[in-house]
Amino acid sequence: MRELEERIIKDGSINPGNVLKVDSFLNHQIDIRFLETLGEEFKRRFDGKNITKILTIEASGIGVASITSKYFDYPPVVFAKKSKTSNISNDVYKSSVHSYTHNETNHIIVSKQYLHKDDYVLIIDDFLANGCAVLGLIDLIKQAGAHVAGIGIVIEKGYQEGGQLIREQGYHLESLAIIKSMDGDTGNIQFVNNDE
Amino acid sequence: MRELEERIIKDGSINPGNVLKVDSFLNHQIDIRFLETLGEEFKRRFDGKNITKILTIEASGIGVASITSKYFDYPPVVFAKKSKTSNISNDVYKSSVHSYTHNETNHIIVSKQYLHKDDYVLIIDDFLANGCAVLGLIDLIKQAGAHVAGIGIVIEKGYQEGGQLIREQGYHLESLAIIKSMDGDTGNIQFVNNDE
Repeated sequence: MRELEERIIKDGSINPGNVLKVDSFLNHQIDIRFLETLGEEFKRRFDGKNITKILTIEASGIGVASITSKYFDYPPVVFAKKSKTSNISNDVYKSSVHSYTHNETNHIIVSKQYLHKDDYVLIIDDFLANGCAVLGLIDLIKQAGAHVAGIGIVIEKGYQEGGQLIREQGYHLESLAIIKSMDGDTGNIQFVNNDE
Repeated sequence: MRELEERIIKDGSINPGNVLKVDSFLNHQIDIRFLETLGEEFKRRFDGKNITKILTIEASGIGVASITSKYFDYPPVVFAKKSKTSNISNDVYKSSVHSYTHNETNHIIVSKQYLHKDDYVLIIDDFLANGCAVLGLIDLIKQAGAHVAGIGIVIEKGYQEGGQLIREQGYHLESLAIIKSMDGDTGNIQFVNNDE
């Protein structure tokens, strides 16, 4: 999505450790009008799919998932919660997600009340890198016996394995921008062209 | 706000310890169409105020803050992040918030880039009880030299001290529903009538 790539180039920065920082518009400060254009684009890419629920993970997925809902005629947005403890009640589905950024394993949980076997779930998240978070969300959906209707990502780090892993499993994954490479010294960011 | 009170009565439940659970539409599963009616009501209550930024706190404030933005002509939404560590860099404003629910103290931080002295900030959050979270957010705004334009809360627990504390300090606080009392045995919920 050209508009997103341009915004990343204009407002993103590359931090030490080759970390892309886009927190001026996506995941600390949020540009809601811009998120509406992302939501519209998700609708275009998943058009014709029957979506009964949007699933994301706290915290930075909640904004884009919430704004995206209206373009799919307002399915409920459910966000998985992170929990340090494995001592969790029986009325939740749980999975575990390792964060390499923070070097810790979180349990993620969703109340069984909010995922049902007749749900067609669109997963939405801001970033896809090694794929751990998305695989954890898929696991929750499977535990509920529900269907993964698709996975919509704002920014995919194409040089990490998550995207390939998920596509190879046959899921319909759409990333609005896919980064091919970044150079922290020059600030140069290259994208995979995936506009349809 | 009558519509919200009716929704709380219909879909809320009172858990042990007199904890009001509204996670079927507000803070785990989110009804986005309903949040739009809340956003419209915030606009009505803070009409005429110049709002340059909306500030909330992760995770459950992000949905309602994001949906509210468009009714104020799309000011950026900034969410304060929670951090366990006090060892935080110099480029953030930080405050501390004690959570009685989880019995822990979190540091909350906002990047200095996203709060400026010429900002008129509307604080939005889902719940107000003892007021610790809102007071922490006010502290961040003051550190930036910015202005608190108002505080919009979805559900205030009127029997806890937060609301009084904040109103006594002269802030314009609007809570869309104020709970006067709850009875876990009967499920009865009484509201303070604050419709204008």
